[in-house]
Amino acid sequence: MKTTLNPMPFRPLAACFCLLWFLLGASPAPAQPPSSVTAIRTLLDNQAAAWNRGDLEGFMDGYWRSPELTFVSGTTVTKGWEATLARYRQRYQSEGRAMGTLDFQDLVIEMVGPRAALVRGAWRVVLPEQVASGRFTLLVRRFPNGWRIVYDHTS
Amino acid sequence: MKTTLNPMPFRPLAACFCLLWFLLGASPAPAQPPSSVTAIRTLLDNQAAAWNRGDLEGFMDGYWRSPELTFVSGTTVTKGWEATLARYRQRYQSEGRAMGTLDFQDLVIEMVGPRAALVRGAWRVVLPEQVASGRFTLLVRRFPNGWRIVYDHTS
Repeated sequence: MKTTLNPMPFRPLAACFCLLWFLLGASPAPAQPPSSVTAIRTLLDNQAAAWNRGDLEGFMDGYWRSPELTFVSGTTVTKGWEATLARYRQRYQSEGRAMGTLDFQDLVIEMVGPRAALVRGAWRVVLPEQVASGRFTLLVRRFPNGWRIVYDHTS
Repeated sequence: MKTTLNPMPFRPLAACFCLLWFLLGASPAPAQPPSSVTAIRTLLDNQAAAWNRGDLEGFMDGYWRSPELTFVSGTTVTKGWEATLARYRQRYQSEGRAMGTLDFQDLVIEMVGPRAALVRGAWRVVLPEQVASGRFTLLVRRFPNGWRIVYDHTS
Protein backbone atom coordinates (compact mmCIF):
# COMPACT_ATOMS: atom_id res chain seq x y z
CA MET A 1 0.00 0.00 0.00
CA LYS A 2 1.64 3.29 -1.05
CA THR A 3 0.85 6.00 1.44
CA THR A 4 1.28 8.71 -1.18
CA LEU A 5 -1.72 7.32 -3.03
CA ASN A 6 -3.84 6.62 0.03
CA PRO A 7 -6.37 9.41 0.71
CA MET A 8 -6.18 8.73 4.52
CA PRO A 9 -2.62 7.60 5.16
CA PHE A 10 -2.25 5.62 8.37
CA ARG A 11 0.91 6.44 10.26
CA PRO A 12 0.79 4.09 13.25
CA LEU A 13 4.05 5.30 14.80
CA ALA A 14 2.99 8.95 14.66
CA ALA A 15 -0.42 8.03 16.11
CA CYS A 16 1.23 6.14 18.95
CA PHE A 17 3.52 9.06 19.80
CA CYS A 18 0.60 11.48 19.78
CA LEU A 19 -1.46 9.26 22.08
CA LEU A 20 1.55 8.67 24.36
CA TRP A 21 2.20 12.42 24.56
CA PHE A 22 -1.45 13.05 25.42
CA LEU A 23 -1.59 10.30 28.06
CA LEU A 24 1.66 11.36 29.72
CA GLY A 25 0.54 14.96 29.68
CA ALA A 26 -2.83 14.06 31.18
CA SER A 27 -1.49 11.86 34.00
CA PRO A 28 -0.68 13.48 37.38
CA ALA A 29 2.90 14.72 37.65
CA PRO A 30 5.01 13.20 40.45
CA ALA A 31 6.11 16.64 41.64
CA GLN A 32 3.29 18.54 43.35
CA PRO A 33 2.36 22.06 42.37
CA PRO A 34 3.34 24.74 44.90
CA SER A 35 -0.36 25.18 45.74
CA SER A 36 -0.38 21.93 47.79
CA VAL A 37 2.49 23.12 49.98
CA THR A 38 0.83 26.53 50.32
CA ALA A 39 -2.50 24.92 51.28
CA ILE A 40 -0.78 22.78 53.95
CA ARG A 41 1.08 25.80 55.27
CA THR A 42 -2.27 27.64 55.51
CA LEU A 43 -3.79 24.68 57.38
CA LEU A 44 -1.05 24.99 60.03
CA ASP A 45 -1.29 28.79 60.16
CA ASN A 46 -5.06 28.49 60.67
CA GLN A 47 -4.49 25.99 63.48
CA ALA A 48 -2.08 28.34 65.27
CA ALA A 49 -4.45 31.30 64.78
CA ALA A 50 -7.40 29.31 66.21
CA TRP A 51 -5.30 28.18 69.19
CA ASN A 52 -4.16 31.71 69.90
CA ARG A 53 -7.73 33.01 70.10
CA GLY A 54 -8.62 30.15 72.50
CA ASP A 55 -10.65 28.29 69.86
CA LEU A 56 -9.77 24.64 70.45
CA GLU A 57 -12.50 23.33 68.10
CA GLY A 58 -11.15 25.64 65.40
CA PHE A 59 -7.67 24.24 66.03
CA MET A 60 -9.08 20.70 65.83
CA ASP A 61 -10.63 21.51 62.44
CA GLY A 62 -7.15 20.90 61.00
CA TYR A 63 -7.46 17.22 61.96
CA TRP A 64 -9.34 14.52 60.05
CA ARG A 65 -12.74 14.27 61.75
CA SER A 66 -12.64 10.48 61.92
CA PRO A 67 -12.38 7.67 64.48
CA GLU A 68 -9.29 6.68 62.45
CA LEU A 69 -7.34 9.85 63.32
CA THR A 70 -4.24 8.73 65.23
CA PHE A 71 -2.46 11.00 67.70
CA VAL A 72 0.77 9.79 69.31
CA SER A 73 2.23 11.84 72.15
CA GLY A 74 5.38 10.39 73.66
CA THR A 75 4.38 6.77 74.24
CA THR A 76 0.61 7.33 74.38
CA VAL A 77 -1.66 6.66 71.39
CA THR A 78 -5.04 8.40 71.14
CA LYS A 79 -7.44 7.18 68.45
CA GLY A 80 -10.20 9.33 66.98
CA TRP A 81 -10.98 13.00 66.56
CA GLU A 82 -13.26 13.19 69.64
CA ALA A 83 -10.72 11.54 71.92
CA THR A 84 -7.97 13.84 70.61
CA LEU A 85 -10.12 16.90 71.32
CA ALA A 86 -10.84 15.56 74.83
CA ARG A 87 -7.09 15.10 75.39
CA TYR A 88 -6.37 18.71 74.36
CA ARG A 89 -9.25 19.96 76.55
CA GLN A 90 -7.90 18.07 79.56
CA ARG A 91 -4.40 19.36 78.95
CA TYR A 92 -5.05 23.00 78.06
CA GLN A 93 -8.62 23.91 79.05
CA SER A 94 -9.31 22.15 82.35
CA GLU A 95 -9.37 24.13 85.60
CA GLY A 96 -6.24 26.15 86.24
CA ARG A 97 -4.90 25.46 82.74
CA ALA A 98 -4.23 27.99 79.97
CA MET A 99 -3.86 27.53 76.22
CA GLY A 100 -1.09 30.09 75.91
CA THR A 101 0.40 31.05 72.56
CA LEU A 102 1.30 28.41 69.96
CA ASP A 103 3.78 28.70 67.15
CA PHE A 104 5.58 26.34 64.77
CA GLN A 105 9.21 26.45 63.62
CA ASP A 106 11.54 24.47 61.32
CA LEU A 107 8.63 23.38 59.11
CA VAL A 108 9.44 20.89 56.36
CA ILE A 109 6.52 20.02 54.08
CA GLU A 110 7.38 17.08 51.83
CA MET A 111 4.98 15.74 49.23
CA VAL A 112 5.12 11.94 49.39
CA GLY A 113 2.23 11.10 47.06
CA PRO A 114 -0.34 12.85 44.88
CA ARG A 115 -2.61 13.44 47.88
CA ALA A 116 -0.27 13.00 50.84
CA ALA A 117 2.48 14.98 52.56
CA LEU A 118 4.78 14.45 55.50
CA VAL A 119 5.14 17.56 57.66
CA ARG A 120 7.71 17.86 60.38
CA GLY A 121 8.80 20.66 62.61
CA ALA A 122 8.95 22.03 66.12
CA TRP A 123 6.05 23.35 68.22
CA ARG A 124 6.12 25.76 71.14
CA VAL A 125 3.39 26.86 73.54
CA VAL A 126 4.23 29.89 75.65
CA LEU A 127 2.21 29.59 78.90
CA PRO A 128 1.98 32.09 81.76
CA GLU A 129 4.43 30.09 83.90
CA GLN A 130 6.44 28.06 81.41
CA VAL A 131 7.27 27.31 77.81
CA ALA A 132 6.28 23.84 76.54
CA SER A 133 7.96 22.68 73.34
CA GLY A 134 8.70 19.63 71.24
CA ARG A 135 8.89 18.09 67.78
CA PHE A 136 6.10 16.75 65.59
CA THR A 137 5.63 14.62 62.50
CA LEU A 138 2.33 14.77 60.62
CA LEU A 139 0.82 12.83 57.77
CA VAL A 140 -1.61 15.13 55.98
CA ARG A 141 -3.98 14.00 53.25
CA ARG A 142 -6.02 15.86 50.68
CA PHE A 143 -9.76 15.23 51.00
CA PRO A 144 -12.55 16.68 48.83
CA ASN A 145 -12.94 19.43 51.49
CA GLY A 146 -9.21 20.19 51.75
CA TRP A 147 -6.07 19.00 53.51
CA ARG A 148 -6.37 17.42 56.96
CA ILE A 149 -3.94 15.88 59.45
CA VAL A 150 -4.64 12.14 59.63
CA TYR A 151 -1.69 11.18 61.85
CA ASP A 152 0.27 13.20 64.41
CA HIS A 153 3.33 12.06 66.32
CA THR A 154 4.38 14.61 68.91
CA SER A 155 7.24 14.43 71.39
CA MET B 1 -13.04 2.68 1.77
CA LYS B 2 -14.64 -0.69 2.52
CA THR B 3 -12.69 -2.41 5.25
CA THR B 4 -13.88 -5.82 4.06
CA LEU B 5 -11.96 -5.26 0.84
CA ASN B 6 -8.89 -3.71 2.44
CA PRO B 7 -6.12 -6.27 2.92
CA MET B 8 -4.87 -4.38 6.04
CA PRO B 9 -7.95 -2.81 7.60
CA PHE B 10 -7.16 0.15 9.85
CA ARG B 11 -9.30 0.25 12.97
CA PRO B 12 -8.13 3.42 14.76
CA LEU B 13 -10.45 3.01 17.76
CA ALA B 14 -9.32 -0.56 18.36
CA ALA B 15 -5.68 0.52 18.00
CA CYS B 16 -6.18 3.31 20.54
CA PHE B 17 -7.84 0.96 23.04
CA CYS B 18 -5.03 -1.55 22.65
CA LEU B 19 -2.39 1.12 23.20
CA LEU B 20 -4.31 2.59 26.15
CA TRP B 21 -4.62 -0.88 27.71
CA PHE B 22 -0.90 -1.43 27.25
CA LEU B 23 0.06 1.98 28.65
CA LEU B 24 -2.24 1.73 31.66
CA GLY B 25 -0.99 -1.77 32.32
CA ALA B 26 2.61 -0.59 32.09
CA SER B 27 2.23 2.45 34.34
CA PRO B 28 2.54 2.04 38.13
CA ALA B 29 -0.80 1.31 39.77
CA PRO B 30 -1.91 3.73 42.54
CA ALA B 31 -2.48 0.83 44.96
CA GLN B 32 0.79 -0.87 45.86
CA PRO B 33 1.23 -4.58 45.39
CA PRO B 34 1.60 -6.57 48.61
CA SER B 35 5.29 -7.00 47.77
CA SER B 36 6.07 -3.41 48.89
CA VAL B 37 4.57 -3.99 52.33
CA THR B 38 6.35 -7.34 52.53
CA ALA B 39 9.67 -5.73 51.54
CA ILE B 40 9.26 -3.03 54.21
CA ARG B 41 8.36 -5.64 56.81
CA THR B 42 11.52 -7.55 55.83
CA LEU B 43 13.59 -4.35 56.19
CA LEU B 44 12.39 -4.01 59.80
CA ASP B 45 12.84 -7.72 60.54
CA ASN B 46 16.41 -7.50 59.21
CA GLN B 47 17.06 -4.47 61.40
CA ALA B 48 15.86 -6.30 64.53
CA ALA B 49 17.88 -9.42 63.59
CA ALA B 50 21.05 -7.32 63.11
CA TRP B 51 20.49 -5.52 66.41
CA ASN B 52 19.98 -8.80 68.25
CA ARG B 53 23.31 -10.20 67.04
CA GLY B 54 25.03 -6.95 68.16
CA ASP B 55 25.55 -5.76 64.58
CA LEU B 56 24.87 -2.03 64.77
CA GLU B 57 26.16 -1.35 61.22
CA GLY B 58 23.83 -4.08 59.95
CA PHE B 59 20.96 -2.41 61.82
CA MET B 60 21.95 0.94 60.31
CA ASP B 61 21.82 -0.59 56.82
CA GLY B 62 18.03 -0.11 57.05
CA TYR B 63 18.58 3.65 57.00
CA TRP B 64 19.24 5.84 53.96
CA ARG B 65 23.03 6.27 53.82
CA SER B 66 22.83 10.01 53.28
CA PRO B 67 23.63 13.28 55.06
CA GLU B 68 19.90 14.00 54.54
CA LEU B 69 18.73 11.16 56.79
CA THR B 70 16.78 12.77 59.65
CA PHE B 71 16.45 11.12 63.06
CA VAL B 72 14.27 12.77 65.69
CA SER B 73 14.35 11.39 69.24
CA GLY B 74 12.18 13.26 71.71
CA THR B 75 13.16 16.87 71.03
CA THR B 76 16.61 16.16 69.54
CA VAL B 77 17.21 16.13 65.78
CA THR B 78 20.18 14.21 64.34
CA LYS B 79 21.03 14.77 60.68
CA GLY B 80 22.89 12.26 58.55
CA TRP B 81 23.61 8.53 58.56
CA GLU B 82 27.04 8.85 60.22
CA ALA B 83 25.73 11.04 63.04
CA THR B 84 22.81 8.67 63.61
CA LEU B 85 25.20 5.70 63.84
CA ALA B 86 27.36 7.67 66.29
CA ARG B 87 24.27 8.40 68.40
CA TYR B 88 23.34 4.71 68.53
CA ARG B 89 26.96 3.77 69.38
CA GLN B 90 27.03 6.28 72.23
CA ARG B 91 23.72 5.06 73.55
CA TYR B 92 24.06 1.30 73.19
CA GLN B 93 27.73 0.41 72.59
CA SER B 94 29.76 2.76 74.79
CA GLU B 95 31.41 1.44 77.97
CA GLY B 96 29.02 -0.26 80.34
CA ARG B 97 26.19 -0.19 77.80
CA ALA B 98 24.46 -3.17 76.21
CA MET B 99 22.40 -3.44 73.04
CA GLY B 100 19.91 -5.88 74.55
CA THR B 101 17.11 -7.42 72.52
CA LEU B 102 14.99 -5.30 70.15
CA ASP B 103 11.52 -6.03 68.92
CA PHE B 104 8.72 -4.09 67.21
CA GLN B 105 4.98 -4.24 67.90
CA ASP B 106 1.77 -2.65 66.57
CA LEU B 107 3.29 -2.16 63.12
CA VAL B 108 1.19 -0.23 60.60
CA ILE B 109 2.69 0.04 57.11
CA GLU B 110 0.76 2.51 54.99
CA MET B 111 1.64 3.20 51.36
CA VAL B 112 1.43 6.96 50.83
CA GLY B 113 2.88 7.19 47.32
CA PRO B 114 4.25 4.94 44.59
CA ARG B 115 7.65 4.83 46.27
CA ALA B 116 6.91 5.96 49.82
CA ALA B 117 5.34 4.49 52.95
CA LEU B 118 4.62 5.68 56.46
CA VAL B 119 5.43 3.09 59.09
CA ARG B 120 4.41 3.44 62.70
CA GLY B 121 4.60 1.19 65.69
CA ALA B 122 6.14 0.55 69.07
CA TRP B 123 9.72 -0.48 69.82
CA ARG B 124 11.11 -2.25 72.86
CA VAL B 125 14.69 -2.97 73.91
CA VAL B 126 15.06 -5.49 76.72
CA LEU B 127 18.31 -4.65 78.53
CA PRO B 128 19.95 -6.53 81.40
CA GLU B 129 18.69 -4.04 83.99
CA GLN B 130 15.65 -2.47 82.35
CA VAL B 131 13.22 -2.41 79.47
CA ALA B 132 13.34 0.70 77.25
CA SER B 133 10.34 1.29 75.00
CA GLY B 134 8.56 3.90 72.92
CA ARG B 135 6.75 4.72 69.70
CA PHE B 136 8.15 5.48 66.27
CA THR B 137 7.06 6.94 62.96
CA LEU B 138 9.15 6.27 59.84
CA LEU B 139 9.09 7.53 56.30
CA VAL B 140 10.54 4.82 54.09
CA ARG B 141 11.35 5.27 50.42
CA ARG B 142 12.07 2.84 47.62
CA PHE B 143 15.51 3.33 46.05
CA PRO B 144 17.07 1.35 43.20
CA ASN B 145 18.78 -0.83 45.85
CA GLY B 146 15.61 -1.34 47.93
CA TRP B 147 13.57 0.33 50.66
CA ARG B 148 15.34 2.53 53.22
CA ILE B 149 14.23 4.65 56.18
CA VAL B 150 14.75 8.31 55.29
CA TYR B 151 13.09 9.83 58.37
CA ASP B 152 12.64 8.44 61.88
CA HIS B 153 10.73 10.09 64.71
CA THR B 154 11.09 8.14 67.93
CA SER B 155 9.69 8.95 71.36
